[in-house]
Order: sequence, then C-alpha cells, then structure tokens
Amino acid sequence: MKINCDMGESYGIWKMGNDEQVMPYLDMANIACGMHASDPTVMLSTVRLAKQHKVSIGAHPGYADLQGFGRRNIAMSKDELTALFIYQIGALAAICKSESVPLDYVKPHGALYNTMMKDDQVFVTLLEALKRVDPTLPLVVMAVPNHEKYRALAAEHGISLWFEAFVDRAYDRDGRLVPRHVPGSSYHELDNIRRQARQMIDAGTVTTLDGQTISVHADTLCIHGDGPQALPTAALLRELLPTGAAGGRS
Amino acid sequence: MKINCDMGESYGIWKMGNDEQVMPYLDMANIACGMHASDPTVMLSTVRLAKQHKVSIGAHPGYADLQGFGRRNIAMSKDELTALFIYQIGALAAICKSESVPLDYVKPHGALYNTMMKDDQVFVTLLEALKRVDPTLPLVVMAVPNHEKYRALAAEHGISLWFEAFVDRAYDRDGRLVPRHVPGSSYHELDNIRRQARQMIDAGTVTTLDGQTISVHADTLCIHGDGPQALPTAALLRELLPTGAAGGRS
Amino acid sequence: MKINCDMGESYGIWKMGNDEQVMPYLDMANIACGMHASDPTVMLSTVRLAKQHKVSIGAHPGYADLQGFGRRNIAMSKDELTALFIYQIGALAAICKSESVPLDYVKPHGALYNTMMKDDQVFVTLLEALKRVDPTLPLVVMAVPNHEKYRALAAEHGISLWFEAFVDRAYDRDGRLVPRHVPGSSYHELDNIRRQARQMIDAGTVTTLDGQTISVHADTLCIHGDGPQALPTAALLRELLPTGAAGGRS
Amino acid sequence: MKINCDMGESYGIWKMGNDEQVMPYLDMANIACGMHASDPTVMLSTVRLAKQHKVSIGAHPGYADLQGFGRRNIAMSKDELTALFIYQIGALAAICKSESVPLDYVKPHGALYNTMMKDDQVFVTLLEALKRVDPTLPLVVMAVPNHEKYRALAAEHGISLWFEAFVDRAYDRDGRLVPRHVPGSSYHELDNIRRQARQMIDAGTVTTLDGQTISVHADTLCIHGDGPQALPTAALLRELLPTGAAGGRS
Repeated sequence: MKINCDMGESYGIWKMGNDEQVMPYLDMANIACGMHASDPTVMLSTVRLAKQHKVSIGAHPGYADLQGFGRRNIAMSKDELTALFIYQIGALAAICKSESVPLDYVKPHGALYNTMMKDDQVFVTLLEALKRVDPTLPLVVMAVPNHEKYRALAAEHGISLWFEAFVDRAYDRDGRLVPRHVPGSSYHELDNIRRQARQMIDAGTVTTLDGQTISVHADTLCIHGDGPQALPTAALLRELLPTGAAGGRS
Repeated sequence: MKINCDMGESYGIWKMGNDEQVMPYLDMANIACGMHASDPTVMLSTVRLAKQHKVSIGAHPGYADLQGFGRRNIAMSKDELTALFIYQIGALAAICKSESVPLDYVKPHGALYNTMMKDDQVFVTLLEALKRVDPTLPLVVMAVPNHEKYRALAAEHGISLWFEAFVDRAYDRDGRLVPRHVPGSSYHELDNIRRQARQMIDAGTVTTLDGQTISVHADTLCIHGDGPQALPTAALLRELLPTGAAGGRS
Repeated sequence: MKINCDMGESYGIWKMGNDEQVMPYLDMANIACGMHASDPTVMLSTVRLAKQHKVSIGAHPGYADLQGFGRRNIAMSKDELTALFIYQIGALAAICKSESVPLDYVKPHGALYNTMMKDDQVFVTLLEALKRVDPTLPLVVMAVPNHEKYRALAAEHGISLWFEAFVDRAYDRDGRLVPRHVPGSSYHELDNIRRQARQMIDAGTVTTLDGQTISVHADTLCIHGDGPQALPTAALLRELLPTGAAGGRS
Repeated sequence: MKINCDMGESYGIWKMGNDEQVMPYLDMANIACGMHASDPTVMLSTVRLAKQHKVSIGAHPGYADLQGFGRRNIAMSKDELTALFIYQIGALAAICKSESVPLDYVKPHGALYNTMMKDDQVFVTLLEALKRVDPTLPLVVMAVPNHEKYRALAAEHGISLWFEAFVDRAYDRDGRLVPRHVPGSSYHELDNIRRQARQMIDAGTVTTLDGQTISVHADTLCIHGDGPQALPTAALLRELLPTGAAGGRS
C-alpha cells in the first residue's frame, strides 16, 4: 500500500503546503497541472523535488478555476472536459520528460474527482480520454463499496484503477466520506489518524462515524499536503508502511 | 518550401480567423497552446481539422497573456520561461497523441518570437528546453541574414532550425521586418504578396522597402491566418507551391 | 418601452458583435465587466461609444469564466457572489465616472441571470448587494408570469426592477423561454421577430410555441448583440419604438 | 507620519501575510484589487477588517499578472493602462461603499509603482486617470530627492501626493532603494529597522548603504505585510508613532 499526497499546489508567489518536508515520506506525488493550482514554474520545481526523492509522479488535473481551487463544479461538455483533461496531463508529462522521469498515473482533483465518482458519464469521459492519450496510465479513484462498477467501466477502456482511502476523514456506512461540514468528519488527532490507517492497512476495513465496520480495499492511502498535520501524518504513515515494502518508483 | 500559418487562435466563444477554410491550403499549422490564445477545446478541434487535411502540426507557444494576445513582453526568469515553454508544447503534444497525429515542430509566438530573435539568452533558453523535452522537434525561426549565428547555437543543442519568411511584410535592408507602424510595412494587395512570394521562391531574395535586393533563405513561408487576405493569400501560395512538390505530412 | 442589448463583449484582440453599428439604435447598453467578457480597455471604449450615442449604460456582471463566457454555472457562496457582483459594478461605474456619464442600471449575464431567476437565494443575494452598493440602480430581470414574487422581494430591499422580454426567442406556456436546443426556440426570420415585438409592444402578450397567448409585461425589449441579425433587429425595433417616445438617457 | 502596509494579498485559497494581526497597527491599508493579487472575496473581507480597526483604505492597483504578482513589467498602451487603473480603483471603491467606508487614496503596486517612478509618461497617465475618476484621491509615491518634479506634475492635474519611505530597505546616495539582489538591501534585524524609522521620523533623513546622510521627506512609512517581520515591524512603528498623534481615519 502506497502513500499519496497532493503536491505542487502553490501558485505564483503564493505558497501552499510544505512540499520540501513532506515529499521524502511519500510514494506518490499528485502534482497539480496549472488549472486549479500550480503554474509551469511550480510544476517544474515540484517534479524536480519528486525526482530527487525518487517519488512516483502523477498528474492531478482539475477544473480550470484558480480562484475556487478546483473545488467548484463547472458544467462542461464532454469535448471540453476531454480536452481540458488531456491538456493538463500532457503539460505535466512534458515537464516530467524534460527531467527524465516518467509520469506514472493520473488522479483527478477536487470537484472533478467528486463528480467523477458520482457521475458515470464524467467517469467514462475521463477513461476514454486516458485511453486515447496513454492507456498505460492508471487512474486513481476513491475506494468505494461498489468498486466493481468502476473496475468494469475502466476495464472496458483498458485502464487500470488504483483505489485510495483517506486516513484523516470519517466514512459513513455507505463507504462515502462524511461531508466536511459535518462535525467529526475530519480527524485532527494523530491518534485517530493512526488508528484508521492501521485498520485500513491491517484489516482492510474502516469504522464508520456511526460505529459500523465496513471494508475498504485500498491500493494507496491519501494524506492532505496542506495543514499542520501534513508532515506528522506523512511520517506516521511512512512508519506504518516502511519504504522497503511498498514505496517509491522501483 | 512549405506554407505555414497560425491556426487555433480562437478562445472560448471568441472566434479568430477562418481555420476551416484556410487549413486545406497549408502544409504546417502553428497551433496556439492556451496561454496567449486558444484553449484546450479549441486546440482539440484544431488538431482534428489539421489531421483531416493532413497538415503538419506545430506547437505555437507564447507568453501567458490572453488579454494582450502574447504580443506584450513579459519579463521572465530562465526557469519560468523554460517551464512555460515546455508546458505548452506538452499540452499540445498530448492532444495530438490523443488524435494519433504527431507533433512535428515548434514555432514561438508574438513577443516571445521577437524576443527570441533579439535576445540570445532567450533563444538559448528555448533551445535548452527543447533539447530536454524533445530534441527531434525543429524550431521555426525568422530567416535573417545572420542565420549562421542561430544555426550554430541550435547545432550546439542538437536542434534543427526551419527558417521562415513573410510574404506580406516589407523587409528593411538589414533583413528585418519593417515595424508595423511604418507606412508600407504590410502588403494588402495580392499582387504585391504574389511578387514577394515568387521572388522568395524563385530567387531566394527579397526587395527591401528602400529598393535593395537581399537574400532570404527560407524553408517555409508564413501567412497570417486572420484578416480578409488570409484565404486568398493561402490559395495563391498553394498555387505557387503545388502540394505534390512540398506539402503536408508525407 | 426601451431597447436593450449586450455590448462590450469583445476581449483583448477578439472581437464580438458589431457594437459600432448597433449602438446608435439602442436605449440601453448592457456592458460586460471583465469577468465573463470584456476587459478594462474594451469597457472604456464601449462606454465612450455609448456616451457618443447618448445610450444609457448598465453593468452586465457575470460569473468569472472567460472561457465559458459566463454561461456555465459556478457554485459560489453568498459572500463570494456578493463580492464578485459588487466588484464588477464598481469597476464599470468608475469607468463611467471617468467619462462623466452615469451608470444607470444592472443586468446580470448568462448563467448568473438564469440562476437569479430560478434560485430566490441568489436573487436576494444580488438585491442585498445592490442595496449596499447603490440602491438607486434598477435591476433588469426577465418578464415572467410570476413577476409579483420578484417585485415583492425587490421592494423589500428598496430596489426597482425593470422587466425585459426577448423578441427573438420563443416562449412556452409558463412564460419561460424555450431552451435553445429545442427546434423553433430562436427566431431567425425578421418577420417573426417583428411580429413578436409588435405583439409585445401593442398587446403586452406573446404567442407561445404551442399557440397560446400569454401576457408579458415588459419595460424593455432585449436583442442579442452578436449574430448577423443584431443590426437589422435593432433597426426594426427602433422603427417600432421611435426614440422620441422612449429612448436614450433623457 | 502614518504607517501604511499592503493588505489583502491573498488569492482564492492561498493566504499571504497576516492581515488579522497586522491590521490593528496600521493607519493605512493598501488593498490589492484583483489583478496582481486578491479577488473580490478577499477584498471584501479585507475592507471589513480595515473598517473594524478604523484603518484608512487605499486602492493598490497593479498589472494584470497574478502569476507574477504584478512584479513583472507589462508593456501597455496609455489607454490600456488608464482603463486597467480606473477599473481596479472602481472595483475597490464599490466594495468600500458597500461597507459604508470611504476609499481614501491610491498606491500603485510592484512593477507599476516602479515604472511610475521611472517613466514620467506612465506617471502622467496615472495622474490623468485619477483626475478623471476622482481627483480627491491622493496618490502615494516614493519619497525621492527630486520630489519637486513629481509634485509639479501632480499639481498640474490637481492631484495630491503622499510620499512614502521604506523602513526596512537600504537607500543609495541617489535616494533610491538599493535593488533587492544587492547584499544589505533589506533589513531583517528589528534594531536596524527601528534605527532607520526613528531617523526618518525625527530627522527626516536616512543613512545610505555607503554611509551618506540624505534627506527623505515622507508622509507615510511603508512596511511589508508578508514575511515574519511584518508584525514586529508594525508594532515597533506604532510605538514610534502613537495613534493619537497620527493614525487612522479621523
């Protein structure tokens, strides 16, 4: 099981997160592609940072909405979304190529990620786009109970899925994340984060906010790169998942 | 000698040029990459149009300045320019890949083009970037009297240059374009355009605004895709340079 | 009854519409404010053009989405929308002030206009914002059968409403516009436009797509500034509504 | 002598500076207007914060270059710059109006500020624009030895100037700031900042990097709102310039 984290979310002069300190603990760096965060300069320096720490690089495309950080839904036609998605993947792929490192996977960001998980048409649009630009790139999606549906759709397009679980977010009994505005939806105590991570790693389950135990089959655990918990969370996950077993580009 | 033209310069709902009608006459379509013009949707449809007419596709990267159409200089550091340049090339390359057509060359746009021809540091920055992202991509530059200097710099980086000449712009005796604000700097009469084109093709020379004859060794002739003359200019060049001899991806 | 039209929808080098020719026929110019279209330079020249023809100027604010021309919904919080709305009104108001002409009214654009008519929370957000920035500015809204609801909400905030009807769009029997994708939803024949305009002016009614007659009480008729019909439509409306009776800033 | 500081330089989700903590120490808050930093939402909350602390509000317009934070020169025509400048002032003025606080002055930002001090044509363009939009708004400029030239130009347009000095930057013997890349150009030690501030306040002079004493007649002292020194610098200036004597809107 690998550790992934959103990286390269600064923009121009504005810094976000603590990439230099967090990067060494990661297996996978999801790098923003200039539409909801990042810019070419930030992307280049983030790719260099990932390369230095031998961390696998994924494209992290989002809606074209800097002000909203890609967290606001934008209604787009299929052609618009296809083009926007491919554009961002290509931009990062070229920056990777210029640094002689591969682009290894794709993980949509924010509202696009959420929409992909809720709207099969959008999910299929992304699969078709990926098939056309590079079908060897796995797509990271949320580890959900009905993962078979997603797997089947992806298989039709020859795309591999990597499922991710969230170590610092509460789940409901449907296996979905409890919305952020609900009290208790996010874990800020490292003990809670460690407990949930360990349960995901050891048992493949999670205890929901209302006390149920449900299964969560994850290929990778996601941590959030901003906020004061990013660094200790990365460190504790790395401790639970030693590099020798799982990590980095090998 | 090939015919190149800037294509895909629309943005969102705003149309520019007459791509559908001009494209069939071209050998090379310089497609804007979303920073000074175009957006992913426009890029995708323009790549499809070029593919349909078997026209070679080049990336046409520019400064990130939609409002100024990439015609205003923006002071950038070397790393900023490198990243911006690679970003745009990669974005278009991926869109080409998704349509199973190659990206064949790179031609900088507007203020970036002019700065590249005036400032060797900028020229070398672009060469180094190209070398790192894809050294097989030729760079289109202006056919100038001191072309040997550019050739030597490019050769150091393993980059091929394609020199272009302008059939509808007046030259001064230094072999530079007469600035647009000077009367007589642009040819609007098709007869003048035809005469200059024929002289470039047949004799490898151009008659300057002040009546000198100077040599212009061009691999490709550039026409401007907007304006009412775009279509007739494309047609007359195609007549002077029949496809069988020169044109398209072969 | 006045004639209003969206003006100033160019952006940078990209032209839209035919403002120079259409402006002389108008009473009210809805000028885009730089978020979905226009830029400060375009706004300044459009204000000058309106001033020259003694046409009343309205702010035409939209969602911050140039690529989507403000036609895509963007989910925004109340504070975000308030600030975005006031920002645009203020920007245009200052440009008007610099030209010594008043800003006379506000008409939301595109998706924001549609959302305002469908979502009372958004409508009230705009009313509250207007009350705070300048309660003397009337708000242009769609002339709908349940106009009393809108009037009551506006009155609570001390805002006047101006209702507008569309001379080139078909109505359904609920008094709403037939969506654009439905065949027959837009009138391209001047005869149809003239007939609907005359009926609105003379009888205060419209014949719906399915042949019903419903009442439409409009203070102003809207024409679309782009498209080949803009100019003849403006001219025919001006003929039906001579300036002496209705038009311009008086 | 008043204390001014750039405020409201966050953008979207990206935070900059420490406005909540610094604001209480200020007399004047220069609020960014959405082109080089800030967005309507940030502007609204910053205006509210200034209002709460009875701090005078100034517009802080810059070049339209978020990625470059307005620090890169952009070549603009006179009309373009006029419109861009007025646009930003108006946008902030309306947000102030919506909060029932006045807009009190204008201070250009970054590259625009530097260009204004170097290029009289740009300075005059800003004066003319200010005269047209609101000649009662003073313009904040750098306290330079040849201040009479600026005063004369401003007086021709009926604009008042407020001169500002920098407490944490080294001066050269021409009374200009030592460029940032020169060692010793910025003071990071509070003792140095205090010494320079006290000398400016008490003696109206500054000691240059090479040990000369030159006169600096300043109406206001500028501190930088980002960086770890912002808060202690604000506090020490407030100590040197007690509010009763100088501060706030009165």
